[in-house]
Amino acid sequence: MSVAYRPSHADATYDMKYGVRSVQGGGRSSARETIGRVAAGAVAKKILKLYAGTEVLAYVSQVYKVVLPEVVVDHDSLSLDQIESNIVRCPDPEYAEKMIAAIDAVRVKGDSVGGVVTCIGLGSPVFDKLEAELAKAAMSLPATKGFEFGSGFAGTFLSGSEHNDEFYTNEHGRIRTRTNRSGGIQGGISNGEIINLRIAFKPTSTIGRKQHTVTRDKKETELIARGRHDPCVVPRAVPMVEAMVALVLMDQLMAQYSQSYLFPINSDLQEPLAIPRLEAAKASV
Amino acid sequence: MSVAYRPSHADATYDMKYGVRSVQGGGRSSARETIGRVAAGAVAKKILKLYAGTEVLAYVSQVYKVVLPEVVVDHDSLSLDQIESNIVRCPDPEYAEKMIAAIDAVRVKGDSVGGVVTCIGLGSPVFDKLEAELAKAAMSLPATKGFEFGSGFAGTFLSGSEHNDEFYTNEHGRIRTRTNRSGGIQGGISNGEIINLRIAFKPTSTIGRKQHTVTRDKKETELIARGRHDPCVVPRAVPMVEAMVALVLMDQLMAQYSQSYLFPINSDLQEPLAIPRLEAAKASV
Amino acid sequence: MSVAYRPSHADATYDMKYGVRSVQGGGRSSARETIGRVAAGAVAKKILKLYAGTEVLAYVSQVYKVVLPEVVVDHDSLSLDQIESNIVRCPDPEYAEKMIAAIDAVRVKGDSVGGVVTCIGLGSPVFDKLEAELAKAAMSLPATKGFEFGSGFAGTFLSGSEHNDEFYTNEHGRIRTRTNRSGGIQGGISNGEIINLRIAFKPTSTIGRKQHTVTRDKKETELIARGRHDPCVVPRAVPMVEAMVALVLMDQLMAQYSQSYLFPINSDLQEPLAIPRLEAAKASV
Amino acid sequence: MSVAYRPSHADATYDMKYGVRSVQGGGRSSARETIGRVAAGAVAKKILKLYAGTEVLAYVSQVYKVVLPEVVVDHDSLSLDQIESNIVRCPDPEYAEKMIAAIDAVRVKGDSVGGVVTCIGLGSPVFDKLEAELAKAAMSLPATKGFEFGSGFAGTFLSGSEHNDEFYTNEHGRIRTRTNRSGGIQGGISNGEIINLRIAFKPTSTIGRKQHTVTRDKKETELIARGRHDPCVVPRAVPMVEAMVALVLMDQLMAQYSQSYLFPINSDLQEPLAIPRLEAAKASV
Repeated sequence: MSVAYRPSHADATYDMKYGVRSVQGGGRSSARETIGRVAAGAVAKKILKLYAGTEVLAYVSQVYKVVLPEVVVDHDSLSLDQIESNIVRCPDPEYAEKMIAAIDAVRVKGDSVGGVVTCIGLGSPVFDKLEAELAKAAMSLPATKGFEFGSGFAGTFLSGSEHNDEFYTNEHGRIRTRTNRSGGIQGGISNGEIINLRIAFKPTSTIGRKQHTVTRDKKETELIARGRHDPCVVPRAVPMVEAMVALVLMDQLMAQYSQSYLFPINSDLQEPLAIPRLEAAKASV
Repeated sequence: MSVAYRPSHADATYDMKYGVRSVQGGGRSSARETIGRVAAGAVAKKILKLYAGTEVLAYVSQVYKVVLPEVVVDHDSLSLDQIESNIVRCPDPEYAEKMIAAIDAVRVKGDSVGGVVTCIGLGSPVFDKLEAELAKAAMSLPATKGFEFGSGFAGTFLSGSEHNDEFYTNEHGRIRTRTNRSGGIQGGISNGEIINLRIAFKPTSTIGRKQHTVTRDKKETELIARGRHDPCVVPRAVPMVEAMVALVLMDQLMAQYSQSYLFPINSDLQEPLAIPRLEAAKASV
Repeated sequence: MSVAYRPSHADATYDMKYGVRSVQGGGRSSARETIGRVAAGAVAKKILKLYAGTEVLAYVSQVYKVVLPEVVVDHDSLSLDQIESNIVRCPDPEYAEKMIAAIDAVRVKGDSVGGVVTCIGLGSPVFDKLEAELAKAAMSLPATKGFEFGSGFAGTFLSGSEHNDEFYTNEHGRIRTRTNRSGGIQGGISNGEIINLRIAFKPTSTIGRKQHTVTRDKKETELIARGRHDPCVVPRAVPMVEAMVALVLMDQLMAQYSQSYLFPINSDLQEPLAIPRLEAAKASV
Repeated sequence: MSVAYRPSHADATYDMKYGVRSVQGGGRSSARETIGRVAAGAVAKKILKLYAGTEVLAYVSQVYKVVLPEVVVDHDSLSLDQIESNIVRCPDPEYAEKMIAAIDAVRVKGDSVGGVVTCIGLGSPVFDKLEAELAKAAMSLPATKGFEFGSGFAGTFLSGSEHNDEFYTNEHGRIRTRTNRSGGIQGGISNGEIINLRIAFKPTSTIGRKQHTVTRDKKETELIARGRHDPCVVPRAVPMVEAMVALVLMDQLMAQYSQSYLFPINSDLQEPLAIPRLEAAKASV
C-alpha cells in the first residue's frame, strides 16, 4: 500500500493534484476530518431544538442488499435511542440483525459494502434554497455517491397527478399536505412537513482482496490491503449526516432572522409592516 | 389558480415565507430565472474548451418510464448535434420517439411527467470537493429531486471488489481506470476520466387535472390549472444542467490556478519547486 | 490623452494589469461606477431610518486649504437640507463660499484640488468590527487616500488620560460618554454615540496643465488634458460616502438580527435567555 | 476594574452587545487574538518573497509627540535588522531613544500614549482594489483610529499639479514614477512602486490614573486601573501590521493567478492570447 494506489480511494487523486502522498490513515482525505463537523453539529442540534423546535435524526436505511422498507420506520415517533440501540444504527432490530450479518459476510472475504443513510428534520423552519445547501453539505462527506430528498429518483417514474402533495387544512387551522413526496421542501423553501433525504455511500475502497493497480511511478502491480479497514462505513456516517444537516439548518435559521424577521410582511396587504422599528427596539432591550 | 395553491408548486411556500403571491408565470420561482445561468454557462463552456480542453454535454436519459439504457450512448463520441437532433434532447432517435410519445400521452390527460438528465464532462481538470459543488449547483435548479454521480445509488448494491475502479497505465504512460464507477471523481478531485452525473426532475406540478388544495385564507377547494403548462420540463433542463456544470468547472479551474499552479510541487521530492518566482515573473510579462 | 498615460490616474495600471485601454471617460475606473452604490445606499438609508432609527449624513469638511473648523458644525442638529443648500455640500454657508472660490481659483489654472468628507451616523446600532468594514467601504471609492474615525491621526498626539471618553449615566438611565474621541465605536462595536469618520480625497489627476508622462509603448512625452474635467471631486463624493456607510450599517443590522436577536442573553445572569423558542414562534406567526 | 467599565476600552461595548463580561486580560477583545494573524502572516511573507519577490516591512514612525521625519528612513534599503535593533521598533536609533523616553515619561504617571506604524511593501505585484483590502485589514487590528497610504490626508492640501506622480521610462525600459504620492497604488492596482501606508494607534485605554466611569448596573464611579498595562502598544503593533499586509498581498497574488494568468492578454492587440490551452497544459505537467 505504500507504493501502490488503492483503487477508487482518494490517495491517487490527492497525489496527482498536490504531489504529496500520505498513506497512513488516508491522510487529509480520511473521514477522521469529520470530527469537527460532528462537534459543531452537536451544538447546532441543541440550538435548533431550543430556538426552532427542530430535531435532526439520521439512520441507516440500507446496507448492501439489505433494504429497510420505508413503512417500517415511523418518522413521527422515531427517537435517537431507537437508532442508537444497535451497532449499525438501524431503528428496526430485525433489519439491524440482517445488516450486521451482511457486513460480517463481506468482512470475512476481505471485501466491503456501502449503503444509504436516511435523515429527517422535524419541525417548521422556512428557508431559502434548502435542498441545494443540503445536497452540498451531504456530498461533502467522504464516500458519498448520491443525494435525494422526498420522492427522489423514484419520483421520476410517477406522473404529476400521482406525485403532487395535495394540501388540506388541519384541525389547528394549519396548512399541511396529505402526502410528503416533496420531502418537506417546495421551491427551495421548507413547508413544515418532515424533511427527509437519502444519501448513498459507496463500499469502502480499501479491501483485503487482490486488485490490479499502478504505483506512483506508473508501474502496474497488484494490491492486497492489510490492516484494520472498516468493511462498511455507513453506520459511522449517521452522526456525520446529522451534523451536516443540523449545520445547514442552523445557517438557514440565522438567515431567516436577518431577512424575514428583520423585514416582517403584512401578509394580507402584501406590504412591509409599518411598525418594525418598535419591534426592533423591543427586541434590543 | 389565483386563489388556490398549486399542490407541490413553490407558490405556497413563497407566500408563507415572504407574504407575497405572484401567480403569473410562477413569479420568482419560475425556471425563467435560469436564463442568466445559461448565458453565463455558455461563456464558461467556451473558456473550459479553450483553456482546459474540457467539454460539457447533457442529455435526457429518462422521461417517465422510458429509460435510455446506458450502453446505448457512447460518452466518448457523443456530440451536441446528436443531442439537439430532436425535441426531447435524447441522443438516441429511437428512444427520443418513445419519450415524445410518453409526453404526448400525459399531455392529453392534463397530467405531467418528470425524468433524468445525464451530464458528462470530458477532459482532465483536477479539482477540490468537486462532487459537493456539482450537487449544490444541480440541486439549485427548479424541480430537482436527486443527484448522483458515477455508480450513484445503484453502486450501494455492489461490494467493494465489484465497485472499485482498477488502475492501469495506458500506451501514453497516463494512469487511467478500466471502469468508471467513480464517475470521474475520487476523494473530491477529478481523476481525468469522464465526469458523469444524473439529476432527477420531478413531474411538473401544474397540471390540468382536478386536485384538492387550499386557498390563501386556508379554505379547502379544488383546482384544475388552465393555460399552457409544459407536461415535461426535462428536455428544457438540459441546457440548464450544462450551464451549471460548466460554471462549477470554471470556478474550479480558477481555483486550480490560484492554488496548484501558484505553488507547483516537485512530485518526486514531494516539496515545492524551488524556482516558482521565475515562472511567475515570466507569466507576468 | 489617447496615447499618453495620465499621471496618477488609473489608466496606466489598468492597462498594465488587463492589457486593455479605455480612455473615454476613464473606463471601468470611472467614478460613474458608483451610481449603483448610491442607488442601493438610498434604499439602505430608508431601511436604517425605519428599522433602526439611524440617519447617515456626509458633508465636505475640507477643500484644498479651506478647512471647516469642527466646532462650526453641530452634529446633533445637522440636516440634509443644510448640506444640500450649496454646490459644494458644506453645511456652513460662509465656508462653502470659501471652498467654491478655492475650486474656481484652480479651475482657471487648469489644476485640481482634493479635500475631506466627514460622515456621521446618528442612532444606536451595536455592531461587530464596524471600523474595519467602514474603512474598506470608504477606501473602495475612487480617489481616496485616507480614512479615520473619532480622534483619528490627531488622537495619536494625546495621552491616554486626555484621549479616553469618560462614561456617565444620563437622565434616562442610559450609559453615555462625555466626549466622543472613540468616534462612536469602541472595540469594533458601536456604543450609541454619533459615529463620525473622515475620508481624504486626492486632487483630480486629470488636469489641464502640462505634465511629463509616457505612452503605452514607453516613449516619454508631455500631456495637457483637454475637455471638461472636474477640478474638485469632493462635493460629488458626499452621496457616495453616505451610500457606502449606509450599506455597511445595513449589513451589520442584518448580522445583528441573525446573531444577537436570535440568541438573546440574560445580561444579569450572563447566560442565554431560556425562552427564545417562544419568541421565535411568535415572530414567525 | 471588575465592576467599572474602563473608559474607551472595548469592555463596555462587548458587555452591551453580548451581555457577557470578561475582565481578565480584555477577553475576546484582547490584542492577544492577533497571534494567529502574525503566525499566518509569517507564512504569507515567506511565500510573497519566494513567489513574487515582495518584502513587507513595518516600523514605528511616531510615538506620542515624537515624529520620525520621513527623510530619515530610506525605504529602498530598510531592513528587518534595522527595525528590530531596538525595543520600540524604530529604524533610527536616535529617534528610538526619544520614543523610549516618551513612553517612560507617561508610564511613571500611570498614563499611556499612541502613535503611528508605517508599513511598506517592496516589489511589483499588480492587484485589484488593493487599498480597500489593506484598509480593512489594518483597521481590524485593536486600537486603530486611522489609515492612509501615499500622500494620505496631507495630500489633500496639494493641488493636482503638485500631487500627480509623473511617469518616466527607466534604463531597463520599465515605466516608473518620479515621485510616489500614490503610495504604490493607482486606481486600486499596485503600480510597482513601493506600497507605503500609515496606521494610527490610539493611546492604551487602560491607565493608572483616576477616571470617571460607570458600573455594569449604571452607577457612576471612579476607576484607577492596577496591574501591568502597556503604556504604548505601538511597537508591539509592528509585527501585526506586517502580518495583515502580507495576508492581503497573499490573497491578491492568488487572485492574480486565477484571473490575469489564467486569461492572458495580448497587450498589443488588446485581445486574449490564442494559445492559453497549451500554456495550461504545460503548467499542469
